[in-house]
Amino acid sequence: MKFATGELNSRKFVGLIMDDDKILDLQKAEKKLFELETIPGSLIECIQKGEKFVAHAGQLAEWAKKPNDESGSFMYALSDVKLCAPIPRPSKNVICIGKNYRDHAVEMGSEADIPEHPMVFTKAPTSVTGHGETVKSHLDATEQLDYEGELAVIISKSGSHISKENALDHIFGYTIVNDITARDLQKKHKQFFIGKSLDTTCPMGPVIVHKSAVSDPQSLKVETRVNGELRQSGSTGDMIFPIAELIETLSKGMTLEAGDIIATGTPAGVGKGFQPPKFLKPGDRVDITIEPIGTLSNQIG
Amino acid sequence: MKFATGELNSRKFVGLIMDDDKILDLQKAEKKLFELETIPGSLIECIQKGEKFVAHAGQLAEWAKKPNDESGSFMYALSDVKLCAPIPRPSKNVICIGKNYRDHAVEMGSEADIPEHPMVFTKAPTSVTGHGETVKSHLDATEQLDYEGELAVIISKSGSHISKENALDHIFGYTIVNDITARDLQKKHKQFFIGKSLDTTCPMGPVIVHKSAVSDPQSLKVETRVNGELRQSGSTGDMIFPIAELIETLSKGMTLEAGDIIATGTPAGVGKGFQPPKFLKPGDRVDITIEPIGTLSNQIG
Repeated sequence: MKFATGELNSRKFVGLIMDDDKILDLQKAEKKLFELETIPGSLIECIQKGEKFVAHAGQLAEWAKKPNDESGSFMYALSDVKLCAPIPRPSKNVICIGKNYRDHAVEMGSEADIPEHPMVFTKAPTSVTGHGETVKSHLDATEQLDYEGELAVIISKSGSHISKENALDHIFGYTIVNDITARDLQKKHKQFFIGKSLDTTCPMGPVIVHKSAVSDPQSLKVETRVNGELRQSGSTGDMIFPIAELIETLSKGMTLEAGDIIATGTPAGVGKGFQPPKFLKPGDRVDITIEPIGTLSNQIG
Repeated sequence: MKFATGELNSRKFVGLIMDDDKILDLQKAEKKLFELETIPGSLIECIQKGEKFVAHAGQLAEWAKKPNDESGSFMYALSDVKLCAPIPRPSKNVICIGKNYRDHAVEMGSEADIPEHPMVFTKAPTSVTGHGETVKSHLDATEQLDYEGELAVIISKSGSHISKENALDHIFGYTIVNDITARDLQKKHKQFFIGKSLDTTCPMGPVIVHKSAVSDPQSLKVETRVNGELRQSGSTGDMIFPIAELIETLSKGMTLEAGDIIATGTPAGVGKGFQPPKFLKPGDRVDITIEPIGTLSNQIG
């Protein structure tokens, strides 16, 4: 199941992708088919309802497939709908893991950069933007804008002191994040927050895939292309600290909450890793593909 | 004017401190005195209304001072009310400045630690707690819990690319933050987020003083006492990067929003700076005083 935040006629809605080319408006479908109004208006609130919401959405999808003269009022062609960031406004900063792939740590400096413990920083909620949106080039603030294709985990069940073994219970699903970074600001300010938080530098989406559709999140291919040229080609199997370990480490004393977003780090091949570096320029297009999530595409403005 | 988030009979309310020993329930006063309901239920929403809210609160305070048989229904003895964190749940992470006082940077290492540019990291919203609340000792996660008394700035007017000269226009007021830090985690994970974000390690309050009551935020005394012993005694005049400069730097490409909280760094005298270090133990009491805000007090649990 693929969940999305859709926008049609200036109204945002919680959507479920159907047959890859249609999107079910869950609130409208529930009202039309069952005369009920239990589905919240935003995907983050749905995620907070946990697996009950997922089961309910599944039932709605079954009913919505049946012939219905009015299905046009709750099922739309995907091509007619704008997909926003699945969580357009997170309720806290996006949690990010630095240097979580050996080859990337080395390209950022040397073997000495391979971390012994997870490096964790955050991106401001104001940096979040959607698939297809223009990423500002921020030429007045940075000369070194860089891409980072990443698998991101969405938390569904709040908790602290979550063990590795129980981590999956707390996951809702997965999406893609482009952890766009101003390399010069990242270096200048030492702590990463400023270089990671410029407006629109956290494209996210296009959808959140429910965990039931991802048999092994640690064996997904992560590919990033810039203007069609393959730059990153990694596997989530190469994470130094796998997802379950990240959740255990993060939650040891800090409560993780439903709707929290954890970007799990980027494989080798970022612009800074090339000689000479290949930073992003206005007009460049970045496509990040992680199946079964899809491709997150953005152009630099 | 001192604003607070009060709690009485399990109801949180937006309060204005009166004569140092009473608190005006702004929503109830407005309803009783003017039969109006324009004041939002949370202080962060009030702050988002900006100076219009401040003016309105001032008028209500004037009316509330007049003799009124029913004043007991909207004005309470301060001693009867629990003061929560002024913003109990910020809408994003608390923005924090590292090593913003020379003597503190040196006590954390050496002269080489004095930053050339602001170091910025964040604390999770789940770490926020109020004046008088118990701070968890997190003995299973850290052996080096440390205090950091800090002046914090509350933003009222959203904006980006805010110049130093215009920074004051974007400030609502000031509060106190204890940027409690797990020093071992801070060091182990290199980026500061994990060591700064354990639950309850961001005591905040007791009130937000409106900027009109602070003639010069760069000449306030910051004093921290542990079990009555004076540990930190600094002046905000010694910040390496003063508030206006921090706002200019932060907002250069990142939109600052109404309700954002910026903790401006701590002066020398943290536990780690002593030989041997004086970390916090269960039962310790930390009092941070910055006038005219008052004293933020918390015990370690």
